[in-house]
Amino acid sequence: MTTQQNGLSDAFHVYDTTLRDGAQGEGMALTVADKLAIAKHLDDLGVGFIEGGWPGALPKDTEFFARAQTELNLRHAQLVAFGSTRKAESRASEDPQVLALRDSGAGTICLVAKSHVGHVERALRTTLAENLEMITDTVTFLRAEGRRVFVDCEHFFDGYHLDPIYAVEVVRTAAAAGADVVVLCDTNGGMLPSQVNRVVSEVLAATGARLGIHCQDDTGCAVANTIAAVEAGVTHVQCVANGYGERTGNANLATVVANLELKLGIQCLPPGKLKELSRVSHAIAEIANMTPRHHLPYVGMSAFAHKAGLHASAIKVDPDLYQHIDPTLVGNDMRMLISEMAGRASVELKGKELGHDLAANPTALANVVEKVKNLEARGYSFEAADGSFDLLIREELEPENSRVFELESWRVIVDRDAAGEVRTEATVKLHASGKRFVATGEGNGPVNALDMALRQGLEQVYPDLARLELVDFKVRILEGAHGTGAVVRVLVETSDGETEWDTVGVHENIIEASWQALADGVTYGLLRTAGLPLG
Amino acid sequence: MTTQQNGLSDAFHVYDTTLRDGAQGEGMALTVADKLAIAKHLDDLGVGFIEGGWPGALPKDTEFFARAQTELNLRHAQLVAFGSTRKAESRASEDPQVLALRDSGAGTICLVAKSHVGHVERALRTTLAENLEMITDTVTFLRAEGRRVFVDCEHFFDGYHLDPIYAVEVVRTAAAAGADVVVLCDTNGGMLPSQVNRVVSEVLAATGARLGIHCQDDTGCAVANTIAAVEAGVTHVQCVANGYGERTGNANLATVVANLELKLGIQCLPPGKLKELSRVSHAIAEIANMTPRHHLPYVGMSAFAHKAGLHASAIKVDPDLYQHIDPTLVGNDMRMLISEMAGRASVELKGKELGHDLAANPTALANVVEKVKNLEARGYSFEAADGSFDLLIREELEPENSRVFELESWRVIVDRDAAGEVRTEATVKLHASGKRFVATGEGNGPVNALDMALRQGLEQVYPDLARLELVDFKVRILEGAHGTGAVVRVLVETSDGETEWDTVGVHENIIEASWQALADGVTYGLLRTAGLPLG
Repeated sequence: MTTQQNGLSDAFHVYDTTLRDGAQGEGMALTVADKLAIAKHLDDLGVGFIEGGWPGALPKDTEFFARAQTELNLRHAQLVAFGSTRKAESRASEDPQVLALRDSGAGTICLVAKSHVGHVERALRTTLAENLEMITDTVTFLRAEGRRVFVDCEHFFDGYHLDPIYAVEVVRTAAAAGADVVVLCDTNGGMLPSQVNRVVSEVLAATGARLGIHCQDDTGCAVANTIAAVEAGVTHVQCVANGYGERTGNANLATVVANLELKLGIQCLPPGKLKELSRVSHAIAEIANMTPRHHLPYVGMSAFAHKAGLHASAIKVDPDLYQHIDPTLVGNDMRMLISEMAGRASVELKGKELGHDLAANPTALANVVEKVKNLEARGYSFEAADGSFDLLIREELEPENSRVFELESWRVIVDRDAAGEVRTEATVKLHASGKRFVATGEGNGPVNALDMALRQGLEQVYPDLARLELVDFKVRILEGAHGTGAVVRVLVETSDGETEWDTVGVHENIIEASWQALADGVTYGLLRTAGLPLG
Repeated sequence: MTTQQNGLSDAFHVYDTTLRDGAQGEGMALTVADKLAIAKHLDDLGVGFIEGGWPGALPKDTEFFARAQTELNLRHAQLVAFGSTRKAESRASEDPQVLALRDSGAGTICLVAKSHVGHVERALRTTLAENLEMITDTVTFLRAEGRRVFVDCEHFFDGYHLDPIYAVEVVRTAAAAGADVVVLCDTNGGMLPSQVNRVVSEVLAATGARLGIHCQDDTGCAVANTIAAVEAGVTHVQCVANGYGERTGNANLATVVANLELKLGIQCLPPGKLKELSRVSHAIAEIANMTPRHHLPYVGMSAFAHKAGLHASAIKVDPDLYQHIDPTLVGNDMRMLISEMAGRASVELKGKELGHDLAANPTALANVVEKVKNLEARGYSFEAADGSFDLLIREELEPENSRVFELESWRVIVDRDAAGEVRTEATVKLHASGKRFVATGEGNGPVNALDMALRQGLEQVYPDLARLELVDFKVRILEGAHGTGAVVRVLVETSDGETEWDTVGVHENIIEASWQALADGVTYGLLRTAGLPLG
């Protein structure tokens, strides 16, 4: 076999285990439908192997493999079933767990095997010799059944430290029985790159087996350990989308792949696929319902975000001086953050990013800079509030098109009765399209109730509003006189189902600060989608 | 100089730049008070150096250094002022930016210098020779003024790649002028550990200078790169709490320190301080109002969390088989994800700390553990709310003495009129000392108004209440536990002018959550000072 299904040479494997090991992460709760959807994205990206789960052991995974046969039409990836070597003192051909692997429909099986004497004796409670026999028997059986077999050596690095002779014997046994790749796993994640590099080199020299690597992030080195293993000669890397996984997580797929392709020149994905990295990472976070990690290398929202200020003009002229790669290579983009140090250059650049030509209108530019300065001095922060910043520019450039309604007043009532029941009601009075609306909303909190009331009123004029949803809400108490006399900054994230935007409000009253951010969020959303009033 | 202020040998430096480089992170907006509070925690931890900011360039940092002289009483760390080499074609002794560094009161100055020919010529727009002159002049001047000087070579690794001879010349020049440490910075964060290791080794061999390392996380290798540099011979590591920082962030302080101490045996912190790592990391996240990153190595909530299931009992018997270190070494704890985090031992210990003997009352202890479990599952957190935790114990041990009033109901009205005026009014109905009180308060926000109303009512019975003041108020939006809506956690700090205590409230309605924290704060304060009712 010299070619993978993704068209790349079989000489190097990108092996994804998001659906199996990634699913062990705290807060991960993937349904079978989620797993199928994630598999499609991983296949689009062009990874060589997708480990789908443990059929036979977990009912959800059994169902996944069953549905995969009809619902997944993988173009690039091979589906892999994960499982264990047979039980001690039995036969692989009669072990229901092993038979379930064979019957899963997956052409490749990844078997986990013990390689640490302590785990063999204390967790598995069998002999060192029997453990080797279990490996030989299970690999041989599945090979005879026509499956390709990889073997994950669990706790390999700790085991090697304790008893290198036995750990190496496990690798040799797996390879001799017919495993195509023997994967060294840093299951407890305690290794550093120099250690991984040394051990991989030694095992490679001792066995000549084809080796793979599987790293957890307990020292914050999962990616670096994976790279160190590749530099020492492994040709198969196991990773998880967005670094999800038990405890601190697994080696992050996107970071490993981008490092290998862009830093070490090892082709991992089919041509042209690298620029799908950011999109696929975000899509998987959405499906898994995990909060996006903005600071992720290469693909995070902040990965190429620069605080404007001193260097804004230099970055504009010479982005390569300030970025380790061109962000478009991985489907990401440079972003300028408007901060306290905001100068004309950064405001102009940020405006351009949002589609406004401030260079052509120096007066407007000067006014926006002045406004930003004043607002930031009062506690506003625009670096995480593109929506409000956009409205600020619009007000300068085309004031007539910067609002979608005029507020008359609002009122919020929250009360708690003798039974401990808490009720919230908000009334909003506003004018839009020449009409006056008075609307009342109830909610589980004051912001929710205001949002409801605003919608009640505005949806009569802007049906597009129904698509907008308040998806996140953050509160920051800024230093003020004392305690409740402080100023409150509220950030609201609104979504139209495709994109999100952030808006900001600041006031000593948390409800008014929330209202400002809420109103900006809705206004920006309606202007953005050009949701025209019905009149 | 052979000893640092933290008592450790000067031969190895842990240098924290949370307040300067960490503050560049997206979403970071530290006030001067935040910076002072963070510095105290870092000093408690025992880092050798705290880079406070850039006095003279940023007004907020100038204020920080001024206030630090009277408000910070550092026991372990040296405060460092960060700044730049002088302007081209001028004199260090006449450069206001350099003079501001001298006048900041900091005994150590860290100067950033260019070491990349492209940055010298295209960003700084001066000659290579003048750049060297700027370094010599500025370092010499500050040394003559009695300051210790470190030099950060910005963009060093990219510069070395482009023109190694010039980059090395910069290191040599800085060291020759009197810089104690020359720090190699991977400013764009594009390096891998093997590259860092090689370059550091070469520069060390070429210059013999004392070297430091400063890494950004753009390849996901900031920690590994820092470790690789130490393995190659650097003796000064620059890090940021929780890995905050521009783009993908900086090398994470806790991860680097724990790796160095526990994996490489390099003592970084004073004896006994390593176990403060988790507490300090969480405290800094709170102060910075950044969402805690649960998957952070060593200190994250999930770092030693095991999904209970197949291996649960094995983990219990043999935790060392499943954990790369004993979590208590870094002040963290093993968590089983189905069972709970609050153990009997820690509740008993904490109770003792607050003056309650739970050991003598096993039933009460069991009940408190059960309550904490349930409340934490609903989003409460008692780590930073001793006041509420104390009340919880009192309710168990002496329920008759655990309350100072009974709430009947409250109501808050916030309205904004057509003129943009915002008004807040709260009414509280309660029973204390056998009487019923109905009181109304106005405030600049709903919490302030509730506080006023509560006082109006209670002060008639508890005159001691006049001494209590709400001094801080924090809000965190928690993600819904699987499908439910968001929940709000409010922390309130109350003071009697001598001590402060924290209380917590959790509810989907922010006003109710605030009320709970407020009511606990007042109750604990009155019980604590034994403020007896007048009857």
